[in-house]
This record gives sequence, C-alpha cells and structure tokens, in this order.
Amino acid sequence: MHIVNKQRFEAFSDGVFAFAATLLVLGIALPASRLAGDAALGAALLALWPNLLAYVLSFAVIGIMWQNHHALFRLVRRVDRMTVFLNLMLLAGTAFIPFATSTLGTYATLRWAAFLYGLTLSETATAYNLMLNHLVKTCAFHESVAPGTIAATVRGYRVGWIGYAAATLLSFVQPLASFAAYLAIAAFFVVPRGADSDIDA
Amino acid sequence: MHIVNKQRFEAFSDGVFAFAATLLVLGIALPASRLAGDAALGAALLALWPNLLAYVLSFAVIGIMWQNHHALFRLVRRVDRMTVFLNLMLLAGTAFIPFATSTLGTYATLRWAAFLYGLTLSETATAYNLMLNHLVKTCAFHESVAPGTIAATVRGYRVGWIGYAAATLLSFVQPLASFAAYLAIAAFFVVPRGADSDIDA
Amino acid sequence: MHIVNKQRFEAFSDGVFAFAATLLVLGIALPASRLAGDAALGAALLALWPNLLAYVLSFAVIGIMWQNHHALFRLVRRVDRMTVFLNLMLLAGTAFIPFATSTLGTYATLRWAAFLYGLTLSETATAYNLMLNHLVKTCAFHESVAPGTIAATVRGYRVGWIGYAAATLLSFVQPLASFAAYLAIAAFFVVPRGADSDIDA
Amino acid sequence: MHIVNKQRFEAFSDGVFAFAATLLVLGIALPASRLAGDAALGAALLALWPNLLAYVLSFAVIGIMWQNHHALFRLVRRVDRMTVFLNLMLLAGTAFIPFATSTLGTYATLRWAAFLYGLTLSETATAYNLMLNHLVKTCAFHESVAPGTIAATVRGYRVGWIGYAAATLLSFVQPLASFAAYLAIAAFFVVPRGADSDIDA
Repeated sequence: MHIVNKQRFEAFSDGVFAFAATLLVLGIALPASRLAGDAALGAALLALWPNLLAYVLSFAVIGIMWQNHHALFRLVRRVDRMTVFLNLMLLAGTAFIPFATSTLGTYATLRWAAFLYGLTLSETATAYNLMLNHLVKTCAFHESVAPGTIAATVRGYRVGWIGYAAATLLSFVQPLASFAAYLAIAAFFVVPRGADSDIDA
Repeated sequence: MHIVNKQRFEAFSDGVFAFAATLLVLGIALPASRLAGDAALGAALLALWPNLLAYVLSFAVIGIMWQNHHALFRLVRRVDRMTVFLNLMLLAGTAFIPFATSTLGTYATLRWAAFLYGLTLSETATAYNLMLNHLVKTCAFHESVAPGTIAATVRGYRVGWIGYAAATLLSFVQPLASFAAYLAIAAFFVVPRGADSDIDA
Repeated sequence: MHIVNKQRFEAFSDGVFAFAATLLVLGIALPASRLAGDAALGAALLALWPNLLAYVLSFAVIGIMWQNHHALFRLVRRVDRMTVFLNLMLLAGTAFIPFATSTLGTYATLRWAAFLYGLTLSETATAYNLMLNHLVKTCAFHESVAPGTIAATVRGYRVGWIGYAAATLLSFVQPLASFAAYLAIAAFFVVPRGADSDIDA
Repeated sequence: MHIVNKQRFEAFSDGVFAFAATLLVLGIALPASRLAGDAALGAALLALWPNLLAYVLSFAVIGIMWQNHHALFRLVRRVDRMTVFLNLMLLAGTAFIPFATSTLGTYATLRWAAFLYGLTLSETATAYNLMLNHLVKTCAFHESVAPGTIAATVRGYRVGWIGYAAATLLSFVQPLASFAAYLAIAAFFVVPRGADSDIDA
C-alpha cells in the first residue's frame, strides 16, 4: 500500500511539464510604456530575439524532459515514496525554468544568467540520475525490460548530465558560448534521428 | 518500443492548449495606477475592446486547434518520435499565442502586431501540415480510416495554412484588414455548420 | 465520426476550470515598491481584503461551474460539434473571470467593476443554458436519465441565469449590493444542503 | 447519482496542485529596470535567496499535500457533495500559496509575512481535517481499509495541523523562527523515511 498510483503520479508530472512550458511565454514582454508607432514596435520586437531564442530552447528542453519522463516510467512497474520525493526535486527544477529562461533571454551576454540557466538544467539532470539510480536499486522496472535497455538508459542520463554540467562551467569563460552549447545539446536530443533508442538523456 | 503512449501524448498537448487559452486573460490589464472613479474605470475598460476582441479571437483559434488535434489523433494508431517533435513545434507556437495576442490587442493598428500574430498562426499551421504529412507517410492511421477522410484532412489543412499565410501578408498592406481576416477565418472554422466533416483546418 | 471523444472534452474543460481558478491569485498583489516595515505590510495586506473576498467568491463560482459541468456531462452520452462550440463560449467566459475578479476586488465600490463581473457570470450562465437546450434538443442524454432529472436541470439553470442577471442589473443601483448578491448566490449554491439534487444552477 | 465521479474530482484537484506549484516561480523576479552588468545581476540574484528558499519550501508543501490527497482518496470509495465543498476549501487555500510564498520570500523578517504564510497552511490543514472527519463520519472508505489505517491517518492529520498552527503563532514572537519551523515541518514530511506509513499529515 506504500506504492503510489502511477497514473496520478504521471498526471501530476505531466501537468507541471505542460504548465512550465506554457509559462515560458511570460518571459517575453514588450516595454510597459506604450510604443510610439510601427517603427518603435518593430524595433522592440526585434530586440526580443534573445528572449525568443531562450523560449525555443527551453520549450525544447522541457519537451525532451517530458519525453524522457514518459519513456522512463513506461518501463517502471511501481512508484514508491522515494521516487515521488526525487520526482518532486525534478519538478521543482522544471518549474524554475521559466525564471532561468527569462533571465537568460534578458541578460544573454552576462555570466550569471548563463550560469543560473545551466545550474537549473544540471539540477534537473541530477534529479533524473538519482531517480534512475533509485529505480535500478529497488528493481522497480517491469520484468520484461531487458537489462541492456536499463544500462543504455543509465549511460544516456550520465552523458546528458555531463553535457549540462560542462556547458554550465563554460558560462564562466564565455556566456554566449554556454548559451550556444545549451542550444546544441537541446537540438541534438530533440530532433529525432534515424535509429533512435527508447530513451534519451 | 519507440512508440509513444498516445494517452500521455494527448494529455500533455491538452494541458498546453488549455493553459495557453487560460493565460490569454493576462493580456487584458487595467493601468497599474489607481483609476479615479466610475467614469475613469468605464473609459479604461472601454479602451480595452481591441484586447477583448483579440482575446475572443485567440480563444476561438486555440479551441479550433484543440478540436483539430483531437479529431486528427482519433484517427491515429501510433505516435513516433518524429510526431512528438513536430507536435512540440506546434505546441511551442500555441504557447506563444498569448504574447502575440496581447501585442495584437494593444497595437491593433500597427503592421508588426498584425504580422507577428499571423506569423504565429502560420507557424502552427505549418507544424500541423508537417505532422499530417509525416503521419500519412508512415501509415500511422488506424486501418479502418477511409482514404477519403485522410485526403479531405490533408486538403483542409492546406486551405487553413493558405488562409493564415494570406492574412499574414495582408498585415503589411493594412493591419486592421489582417485582424478582420483572422476573425473571419476563426469564425468560419469555429461555428459548426450543418453537415460538418470530421476535421477542419 | 463527428462525435467528440467525451474524455478529452472533459479533460480540456477541467484544465480550463482548474487553471482559471488557480490564476485568480494573480489578482492579489502587494504594491511593487518595497514596504517599509511590519506596520506598512500589515496595512497593505489588510487593504487587500476586498481582493481576498473577490478571490474566495470566484473560487466558489468556478468550483460550482466545474461541479455543474461534471454533473451535466455525466448524464450525456455524446458530444457533437455544436456542444464543443457552446462549451468554448462557456470556457472563454470562465477564463475571463480572473480579470473580472481582480477588477471587482480593486474597484469594489465602482459600478463598472460590479457590472463587468456580473456580465461575465451572465455570459457563462447563458452559455450553460444554450448548451443545455442544445443537449435536450438533440437527445444527447443517456437513455437511463429520467425526464424529471432533465426538467429539474433546465429549471435550475434558468434560476441561476435569472439570479446572475438580476445581480448584474443591481450593479447600476448599488455596486456593493451587487457584490453582496454575487456572494449570496455563490454561498447558496456552493454549500451542500441536506437533500441536494444532482445538478445546481 | 449524487455521488461525484472520483476520476474527474482527482483530475481537477491534481490540476490545481500542479498549477499552484508551477505558479510559485512568478514570486521570483528580478527588478524591472535593466541591471547594469555581471556584478549587478549577480547581486540581484543573490538577494533573491529568501525567495528561492520560500519557493523550495512551498514546492515541498504542495508536493506533500498532493501526496496526502492521493494517499487519502485511494482509500475512499465515494465522493459526495460535502466532500467536494471541503475539497474546494482546501484547493482555495492551495491556490493562495503562491501569494503567501512571494510575500514570505520578499518580507522574510516581517511578522505579517510569516503569519500570512502560516495562516494559509493552517487553512489547508483545517480543510484536510474537516474533509477527513466527514469521510470517516459518512463511512466513505473502501471496506478493505483497516480501521487502524484510518485512525493513523486521523492522528497524522491532527499532528500536522498542530505543527502548522504552532509555527503560525511563533510568527508573532520571531518571524524567522517561524520560517525555520515551516521548513523543518516540510523537510520532516517530504523526505521519505525507512518504514513510512501510507499517509502523512
């Protein structure tokens, strides 16, 4: 009876993923004071391009996270209290992404903006890895899942974690390079490839 | 195993549709400074009528999109990684609608506002067409679906795409005519007609 | 095939109800400038009491609407395109409630605030009545539903509509009396009574 | 027929829980005026640490509430109108948490901020206790649920209520001690322990 209903667990997680993705748009805003005419509006919209890029990046990131969550829990047969706790850690990081995204979009050339963004993604990657470790340790997978699939998943999650951590460290050297690295990682994982495996990091 | 659970795919999409529609209301706001009395409040509310019109328009647009998504995926028997990717493209455009709507409502007479709105709808229409093409190409439909239904759907989606693109181009000629065209397209699709087909563009 | 999947229809509606209710909190805000100390914060919080009352009112109103939606569609066996259209009309009014609520809370003594709020509730009540009429006309109810239940529902919805419309008109005479009337109607419907019927207006 | 469909009841509740948790992020905001450079951004982000702490606290609190809701209603076989009413009381308090959280984060050293936060949590704990009492009184539990499980749940909920009420009173003595107490209570309940029971307060 200490097992959690997987369906409500997934519904709650899906809710947070979907809302966090939709809240991203609040990070794109025109100046509060009324713009004078067509030229001013055009200029103000153009000036939002780093915010728009950050929006697309984070939408892809949350989309990948949703997909991984979905791919992972399809393999899982039971969800215990510790999994719920680690999942909350993951969702708290996910729900924080709108703030990190608007900071990155508004201050794309500053170190702390790139660092905060990377830290947020690294936190979610850490939560994913801890959750996966716990699931492996407690044999929470369906018996029909091949050991090779689990091993590949563990490997994929570690690679993802290393990628995010490296891009985060890069933020101290060159913020824009770090932004570019986040985009490259997201593009790599979000675009489906010919022979794609079940779960991506 | 590279097939996605259709139920969670639909739940995530429904979440974004419903949430984007509900976020539209944030585009309607009174001045931050306190209004002096009944006359001032009445005037401020009346001045919001283009925002209110844009709200109704976008609520209808998202309602139509939800309906089409629903009608399309009822015909589909499997959802692969590429479908998830194209669906993310669609949802990213959908979640952007609240910003495009508040811009259109606030700057209804300016070209860039009408253009941004049309561009957003055209992006979603493009994503719908790409997704449909992919579903057709990979034979992702239930075997019981008549070829005529699929052909009608493809035709309907192309007409919708052309309509949005034409209204978008119109924004450079006359922004208010473009706004009117968006309203006309939405009204055409949202109001049920006598012998309605399964899927509208 | 022109029948809509009732489950996704309900999920989309539930999403809008739940999000609109949760967005209400954005209508309660402290001044943007930093408050000086404990006395200033206490005073600022106390000054928000009409906003808080409006918050509780609207939470109850949306809760009642969700309950009625739920009670109504449990009796329904099929959802067609016209029902979806009228439901969109209902949801567009529901999603507008956060704006009407923050206006009512901020300008409780002004006529237009009370009028806008009543107009919003009347729009939703109108949409409910049109939807119910359509469901009756198209025999969309389960065969096991007793005619008396449907007749009682129709009566209840008309009473609700009349109540909201009367309170709306009252706003021109005395805004605070109108506010009190909205509270009384909501309290009447939200508090369960001994022998409650299935559906309330 | 006056029994509510448990699935839509849970879906509506899950929506409010997930959405309230995701809205918490709006309580973390940089100054509206553009910051000058890396040092200014770093300082502004550091100054947000009480907001971040309040964010983590409230995410944990809502996570615990979702978990308790889930654990409680798994034992329940029917949901009547009074349960829906008391659940609305609970959800209205939950949806208020984002405002109480941003107030606590922004004014962590002030009495009224700590008091408002505690009052909000006490309201939700009160609603939980009233709901549980009603479920017990109306024998709404599955017959297979052991009386000991229900007794333990009742005890756990009372302990939670007393904890929140005590921390709320503490706010008048020392606001920061009260903040620490909220954190301690949340940490106690959110971290899974070795032999955890089904339901926590």
